Amino acid sequence: MGDDAAVLAPFAGEALISTDVAVLGVHLAPDLFPLEDLGYKAVASAVSDLAAMGGRPRAAVVAVAAPPGTDLEELHRGIADAAAMTNCPIVGGDLTQAQQVSVAVTVMGETPGKGSVLRSGARPGDTIFVTGPLGRSAAGLRRRREGAPLDDPLVVAHRRPWPRLLEGLAARHAGVNAMMDLSDGLGIDFHRLADASHVGFVLTHLPIADGCTEYEAIGGGEDYELVMTTAEPDRLLEMFDRRGLRMPIAIGLVVKDPSIRTLRNDPMPRSGWQHEL
Amino acid sequence: MGDDAAVLAPFAGEALISTDVAVLGVHLAPDLFPLEDLGYKAVASAVSDLAAMGGRPRAAVVAVAAPPGTDLEELHRGIADAAAMTNCPIVGGDLTQAQQVSVAVTVMGETPGKGSVLRSGARPGDTIFVTGPLGRSAAGLRRRREGAPLDDPLVVAHRRPWPRLLEGLAARHAGVNAMMDLSDGLGIDFHRLADASHVGFVLTHLPIADGCTEYEAIGGGEDYELVMTTAEPDRLLEMFDRRGLRMPIAIGLVVKDPSIRTLRNDPMPRSGWQHEL
Repeated sequence: MGDDAAVLAPFAGEALISTDVAVLGVHLAPDLFPLEDLGYKAVASAVSDLAAMGGRPRAAVVAVAAPPGTDLEELHRGIADAAAMTNCPIVGGDLTQAQQVSVAVTVMGETPGKGSVLRSGARPGDTIFVTGPLGRSAAGLRRRREGAPLDDPLVVAHRRPWPRLLEGLAARHAGVNAMMDLSDGLGIDFHRLADASHVGFVLTHLPIADGCTEYEAIGGGEDYELVMTTAEPDRLLEMFDRRGLRMPIAIGLVVKDPSIRTLRNDPMPRSGWQHEL
Repeated sequence: MGDDAAVLAPFAGEALISTDVAVLGVHLAPDLFPLEDLGYKAVASAVSDLAAMGGRPRAAVVAVAAPPGTDLEELHRGIADAAAMTNCPIVGGDLTQAQQVSVAVTVMGETPGKGSVLRSGARPGDTIFVTGPLGRSAAGLRRRREGAPLDDPLVVAHRRPWPRLLEGLAARHAGVNAMMDLSDGLGIDFHRLADASHVGFVLTHLPIADGCTEYEAIGGGEDYELVMTTAEPDRLLEMFDRRGLRMPIAIGLVVKDPSIRTLRNDPMPRSGWQHEL
């Protein structure tokens, strides 16, 4: 801090970098949520991109643009919370004036040992897993609109998403073929993975979280659960079990024909989160 | 590209990271300059932070926020120009809606061989150098306001600053003790270097670029020349000469007493660029 750039000790393995910008009024409704949530979510969503590659965070930098009078301390509190909880130190930043509050977060990570897990590695016959039931974030937004308090568990899931870093590392160490995080919803994100891998998929099971609708589970974004495909499902389950992580949930199979994209025998349309507030 | 994070091959030496956000109407007057200049300047100012550490760029990510209807292609042209000219590939990005155009650029760099040059290493007796005469950017903004065309050389200096990457590397290899880039103007930036190093300074010479005022040279920002201090001035000059770089200009000496801060025998006030448009 204080120099023109932050200096980091050498990286283990490949270096990862990802950037995310969160804008007040676009990514967070200012009438429903405190400003600190914008800072938290900006950092968490960027860190989740590292989890999706099987990486671990090394550092983040944060560029804030805000109108005069913005409570920067509150914003920073959310940023610092997410940085502490994901073990990702903020090593630099920039602050400038603008009409609207925005937080641009760039995270750097590393992949000690084997290389990163990409979206493009899924192979026919792979089993598809997700790290948890879906829909909590979208349901939390709905419940907040209906008047639920900020500490309602589903509202918290929306406000304070938890990047699946340990799960991503475990999956990489278990040799999964492809992985990504669910930021826009399974209904759109898994098409992206299948596109990148030139494969199709047969989803047999949709794990809907308690209190959520099917639409929220498939079309809602910001769950930040990981979805992964592997030729060695037993190895994946064993790795999660050994590390004391919640068991991933098998939801289907990768197939060769890219035109086959079904959920419980029906074609799965591309539907996802449009950041509607 | 296309994955959640970009993957980079291992770094040589320390890893550097820096972020800068440029906002239309704050960092660039939309009535005076084309939108592509905002993209160019955002990348160039971030890369300049690497130059200031003696680093070389490895990659950048760009987060753009913009209202509907923004000419993103034009913005991207400026980003791509700066990336190409500084040999810093754009490896990822994010795009979101906002009321105002902003470009947040994060650059990563590396320092093969010895470590980075910090602001805090200046020692009494060091000779102070800058890599070129000062004031061109501020003079260019003035001239543009007076009606000068976009291709006026001083206007170009404002629109298209050139990060001093080769000079920063040469200075690091010549063992300079401290370095930074002049983004806010010598009048404020050199105080920052002296503060970080707990030293004073006696500036004997102010190199004013042709067509610029003394005020622009000392108080104008965005020149992005490097200022450095070294105990071995001959070694620095020899290194620049051998590499075919323009000779750095000696402007004064570092002194032990932090309260001594003079320019041509007068106290040098803290004055710098306030991004006034």
